Amino acid sequence: MTDSFQYTCAAQDGKARAGTFSTPHGILETPVFMPVGTQATVKSLTPDHLDDVGAQIILSNTYHLYLRPGDDLVAELGGLHQFMHWNKPILTDSGGFQVFSLSETRKITEEGVLFKSHIDGSSHEFTPEKSIAIQQNLGADIIMAFDECAPPYDKVYNQKSMQRTHRWAERCLNAKTRTDQALFGIVQGGVFPDLREISAQTIVKLGFPGYGIGGLSVGETKDEMNAMLEVVNEILPENKPRYLMGVGSPEDLINGVLRGVDMFDCVLPTRLARHHNAMIPTGRMNLKNNQFARDPNPIDAVCDCYTCQNFSRAYLRHLIAAKELLASTLISIHNLQFLISLMKQSRQAILDHRFQPFAQSFLKNYKGN
Amino acid sequence: MTDSFQYTCAAQDGKARAGTFSTPHGILETPVFMPVGTQATVKSLTPDHLDDVGAQIILSNTYHLYLRPGDDLVAELGGLHQFMHWNKPILTDSGGFQVFSLSETRKITEEGVLFKSHIDGSSHEFTPEKSIAIQQNLGADIIMAFDECAPPYDKVYNQKSMQRTHRWAERCLNAKTRTDQALFGIVQGGVFPDLREISAQTIVKLGFPGYGIGGLSVGETKDEMNAMLEVVNEILPENKPRYLMGVGSPEDLINGVLRGVDMFDCVLPTRLARHHNAMIPTGRMNLKNNQFARDPNPIDAVCDCYTCQNFSRAYLRHLIAAKELLASTLISIHNLQFLISLMKQSRQAILDHRFQPFAQSFLKNYKGN
Repeated sequence: MTDSFQYTCAAQDGKARAGTFSTPHGILETPVFMPVGTQATVKSLTPDHLDDVGAQIILSNTYHLYLRPGDDLVAELGGLHQFMHWNKPILTDSGGFQVFSLSETRKITEEGVLFKSHIDGSSHEFTPEKSIAIQQNLGADIIMAFDECAPPYDKVYNQKSMQRTHRWAERCLNAKTRTDQALFGIVQGGVFPDLREISAQTIVKLGFPGYGIGGLSVGETKDEMNAMLEVVNEILPENKPRYLMGVGSPEDLINGVLRGVDMFDCVLPTRLARHHNAMIPTGRMNLKNNQFARDPNPIDAVCDCYTCQNFSRAYLRHLIAAKELLASTLISIHNLQFLISLMKQSRQAILDHRFQPFAQSFLKNYKGN
Repeated sequence: MTDSFQYTCAAQDGKARAGTFSTPHGILETPVFMPVGTQATVKSLTPDHLDDVGAQIILSNTYHLYLRPGDDLVAELGGLHQFMHWNKPILTDSGGFQVFSLSETRKITEEGVLFKSHIDGSSHEFTPEKSIAIQQNLGADIIMAFDECAPPYDKVYNQKSMQRTHRWAERCLNAKTRTDQALFGIVQGGVFPDLREISAQTIVKLGFPGYGIGGLSVGETKDEMNAMLEVVNEILPENKPRYLMGVGSPEDLINGVLRGVDMFDCVLPTRLARHHNAMIPTGRMNLKNNQFARDPNPIDAVCDCYTCQNFSRAYLRHLIAAKELLASTLISIHNLQFLISLMKQSRQAILDHRFQPFAQSFLKNYKGN
């Protein structure tokens, strides 16, 4: 299995890494941003749009696909790649984050998590073995260990939860049978450097072809997130990819790359698009604002996405005012290409050994979230 | 002006015609189906999708664009082609159909129609001159005379309304100043052959580069519609295109072509798509039905649209169940390509002088609306 999932570091600049990671559906060039297709579709976009914006890999959600349409159905139809017509790499999460978010309707035991469906209230249980079985049915290139993403500030709870997550990680390793999928372990430990250290050491000792860094961007400060990344990446092996889970603001991406992160995912770009916000180098642009009503300029004059090459702010604002679906599509295209290009530019800057000034210049100009 | 808007009949098979019509943004091959982009967007599709499905020309609505974003704004931004990034031909309607539909809030005089906006209740007046001025601001290749689409069965009212429509047609001709737009006259007269005859003769005498046939598919039977087409097309000149307005069911298209119609438009394919219905040679397929839950087949195995080439009925049903926007996009792509291809196939059949059996075979297999 490990033969198929090789990480190679092509260049390092400070802690920042430019690398490649091989999967059965192609080689990822890292650092990379992964668009999220929760329900086997990146909202409002076709797979062709995803190709156009330069997506190398997408993420899909085990919890959602298990409930609807069902992982058995996806398997019967040839797996997630064929089902959604995406022939490049896919990563699925473990479902853990979603079931733990159902705080009112779930119960955690050593065995796993009992929860009720948000769709129809029906009862279900996820265990490490069940999560792996579902992810094997879905058939992504990269699958994730079943973990608990604990609230960041309760040390006693984080210690207890993290140790259970470690036991679950081992159960996931034992449950996995497919050799054409890479299982990533996940480091937890809240905002506590000593817990993060223990977690990273324990998960690394179990041995995975890649590592997720979980439990960040969930309420802690940016300084705390950055501090945890520094602790964890000091321990994670240099010859494996590092994935900062659920992180997607431009400044968090740059800060992550500065600290040696290789992979990111977030619903932010497509969610912002549905709320009329375009991502730009200085922050966000709310295209619903009156000031854009007669503005013939594109969102960003230097952006080469389909939206910026062909449509004015005035047209996008018209689509928003007229409640036309095309608004979400066009702004999603721009936002995804913005984040994907930011990672491509970062990669090139690392290869050229100019990533430090590139990152500093970006962070200096960036005003918003 | 007429030099730019030449209709050439390449072949005739019975009454069915295969022709070309030249416009400033390209040559239409007829018969042709025109997708409707009411608010300067064909709902849920990018202009690239429209290219992909083979759209030669789209229709947009004067009433909607006048109210929002405003025709002056569209003009300021370079006209409708540039505004919505569609560089092929566009046709705008006159706004008449929409304002006459506002039956509770409009008042008709010889001068024009007073009406209230469906968006904010504000008062407005459309006159023939105003309609032409708006359509000149929008800048479509083909613009339509301001007419009244009367209820089909009231003969006294139809006679009175039709005569006013004729006077308005003349006022439209006098109001028009742009030479890069073709103004089509419109024949009215309800379901009454004698009125249709008078209307066709009167409008032809005024002299237009093309003719709309209005007031059909508004409640009359299909036999009545076909009878009116036969009366009118006997009178319309052979060297000008004929446009059956607002008609879009597959059988109506075939019946129209059989009777010498060249152009059609309708919201049906995109509206059906938003309600989960795919158009197929035998009628409609409701993709929300349970029977498709595990169906690996495309909507139509012989269709070469993007949707049928890449996605199963099971996937489309999943998108519908999950309320994902991509369902509308993918089914719209299929439905539009279905109607556009139907007209392309009809054209080829006419050129090959086998349209009569082609049409009969299609109508025989077609079960429903």
